[in-house]
Amino acid sequence: MNVFAYPEPLADLVMAFSRLPGIGPKTAGRLAFYLLRHEDVALKLAGAAERALREITACEICGNYTDVQPCRICAAANRDRTMLCVVEQARDVASLEKTGEYNGYYHVLGGVLSPLDGIGPDQLNIASLLRRLTGVNEVVFALNPTVEGEATAAYLSGLLKPLGATVSRIAHGLPVGGDLEYADEVTIARALEGRRRL
Amino acid sequence: MNVFAYPEPLADLVMAFSRLPGIGPKTAGRLAFYLLRHEDVALKLAGAAERALREITACEICGNYTDVQPCRICAAANRDRTMLCVVEQARDVASLEKTGEYNGYYHVLGGVLSPLDGIGPDQLNIASLLRRLTGVNEVVFALNPTVEGEATAAYLSGLLKPLGATVSRIAHGLPVGGDLEYADEVTIARALEGRRRL
Repeated sequence: MNVFAYPEPLADLVMAFSRLPGIGPKTAGRLAFYLLRHEDVALKLAGAAERALREITACEICGNYTDVQPCRICAAANRDRTMLCVVEQARDVASLEKTGEYNGYYHVLGGVLSPLDGIGPDQLNIASLLRRLTGVNEVVFALNPTVEGEATAAYLSGLLKPLGATVSRIAHGLPVGGDLEYADEVTIARALEGRRRL
Repeated sequence: MNVFAYPEPLADLVMAFSRLPGIGPKTAGRLAFYLLRHEDVALKLAGAAERALREITACEICGNYTDVQPCRICAAANRDRTMLCVVEQARDVASLEKTGEYNGYYHVLGGVLSPLDGIGPDQLNIASLLRRLTGVNEVVFALNPTVEGEATAAYLSGLLKPLGATVSRIAHGLPVGGDLEYADEVTIARALEGRRRL
């Protein structure tokens, strides 16, 4: 009996789980059987998924996920209007906010330039970024350290500098708790490059 | 920003995911953001969970999960009526069916004896098991090799033997592809005990 010999509603649920990232067929089966035994968990999950799709939209200003317009960060009056942090995706905002170290505003690009995937400047929230520069002293790029992330930062940097903004990017280097032995050479090279005087 | 600073519908979805077994807060966040970016996957998952709860029930005969009564295995005429395999949970039926090596019928206990958790004989499908013995030559226990599983097999064995049934259990030993070096001593002792002449 493979997955398709489960009763169809159960096979469907296993298939639905296995479409999630990082969930293989075995985990999908385990989760599906768990839901059948825990009706409350299943109903909560189904309801929460439907509600999130219905109520969560992109903030009209920054592109972050929100249930109000504009989002709570854009609406906050006590943040630093002179700093704007550019990220790839809405979830990156959450990662940065968790640090508690950044008090400016955000701008979600919605991806990075990737010509092979057909993602050019027009597919990203770049026009809206350019309209937000009034009063901004520094634009910090917090893009992922990938080839596409670097290319996107370079491209945007070329657009923003002539408009008078200071442009920076977050540091690349060894992760805290990391080990030189396990770090790749590009990371080590970046860490050397970004060394700071003590 | 911790998880509670997400917009509420998003925080709810993260919480719902983190109630699943083996899904920690970080994975829950990743899955929730994935669903927001993939509406089709989210709707499919929510729909499949609701439908499975609505349509899947326990088979009236064997206790397996099914969308028809009796389940397709109990309804099959071409299986071996003389063999009955006793398992803990409905999902164990799927594991055994996948081997393609067993052609008898099943009986799902719905758990194992566990006095500390308040699970005694009356909480398991034992009465219905005793009513199914007509024409059965062999009852095979395929319970998990835990203390509770062993105790349950011993208890049921004591009930079934006086009724004339041959009682057996699946072999315990080294898993195929396993390595003596990594096996625990109880497994190795069981494997020795269950050795077979070549």
